[in-house]
Amino acid sequence: MSGSAIMRPRIVEVRERVLKQNDLLARELRQRFQEAGVRVVSMVSSPGAGKTMLLEKTLTILSREYRVSALVGDLATENDALRLQRSGAPVKQITTGTTCHLDASMISAALIDWNLKGLGILFIENVGNLVCPSSYDLGEDLRAVLMSTTEGKDKPLKYPSIFNSADIAVITKLDLAAAADFDRQTAAANILTVRPGMRIVELSAKRGDGMDDWISCVIGARGVA
Amino acid sequence: MSGSAIMRPRIVEVRERVLKQNDLLARELRQRFQEAGVRVVSMVSSPGAGKTMLLEKTLTILSREYRVSALVGDLATENDALRLQRSGAPVKQITTGTTCHLDASMISAALIDWNLKGLGILFIENVGNLVCPSSYDLGEDLRAVLMSTTEGKDKPLKYPSIFNSADIAVITKLDLAAAADFDRQTAAANILTVRPGMRIVELSAKRGDGMDDWISCVIGARGVA
Repeated sequence: MSGSAIMRPRIVEVRERVLKQNDLLARELRQRFQEAGVRVVSMVSSPGAGKTMLLEKTLTILSREYRVSALVGDLATENDALRLQRSGAPVKQITTGTTCHLDASMISAALIDWNLKGLGILFIENVGNLVCPSSYDLGEDLRAVLMSTTEGKDKPLKYPSIFNSADIAVITKLDLAAAADFDRQTAAANILTVRPGMRIVELSAKRGDGMDDWISCVIGARGVA
Repeated sequence: MSGSAIMRPRIVEVRERVLKQNDLLARELRQRFQEAGVRVVSMVSSPGAGKTMLLEKTLTILSREYRVSALVGDLATENDALRLQRSGAPVKQITTGTTCHLDASMISAALIDWNLKGLGILFIENVGNLVCPSSYDLGEDLRAVLMSTTEGKDKPLKYPSIFNSADIAVITKLDLAAAADFDRQTAAANILTVRPGMRIVELSAKRGDGMDDWISCVIGARGVA
């Protein structure tokens, strides 16, 4: 791997500088969120695992009792923000161009004209990517990694860093489990191999089963202001 | 975006150096493949879009008439290689650690103990990622971007660069189209918006429909030695 031996150290060095700067900014953000009483929940997954559908249902359910808001990341299009704004919650799109993940500076910039005190529970939907977002702290209280029943059971073994960086695992599209021959036991065992003791929530945002369990994770043990 | 304004130029500069080096190496690879009469087909998609299942069926079908071989990329595990080796074809796993894509140097290193002349049609299965692999030429003749019917119809609009870097689009898991309420017309229209005239193949590797169309793309107009 001669080419890569020459190239990699320099990239790694720059990446570490960027990550260090991101960590500092994320720490600042986390403090601002805490002071404003905002609970921040981020969602990461492959493209198409159902983040936006789950968020749409979640905003609708929670907005009956809580203030909710969302930042949604995509390389391109405002589709997700438009879709989520139907819930009535304040929603802003972050388009990243060619950048494959959100970082703390993007979150900070997107919040610039929002009053943190009014955000209640703030959701951050990352760019669909099961690799790169794992390294970037966004100042969130809870990071959920989603995998759908149609993605197969071995994703945790193949993408361990994202499962290691997340707090809970959410298995989505339970309604497609039978059609996709989803092996529930093995999927759970694979998650627990990578991350022993990880809390696993199974749900179908479409049908509604499992949503209570998810909502209780979102709200958290300490509740929300 | 003050943090990002400070950080990005340096990262971009390094990334461009890496890409330039990758392009040189990919060009070398492409020439070696041509001289050895190897046709190279790469596959990119989200995690779980069905690359390995499609590759498994493809190796089985093609090995009746052609020599076939495969390199499969993942962050971790040898699962895919073990699964594909059942076809009898020479298969090698490339594990990338935390790197979110394959690059030309990884391909070159993986080929080091293989005689190119014997490879026939060489498949390269990239790491599951709809963003980063788009920038890395691997010396392939044909790059196929896969999206499954369960991922929803808007992926081409949200991940335009990968559709722009690919030669054909493959819609997988047709068997789940009805259960997932897949909107076929809009999906095709979205692909063609991003990439006018792009060839679209629809298939179910599980059921077998659409495989002929895919196989004819793989073999290519000029045939294989």
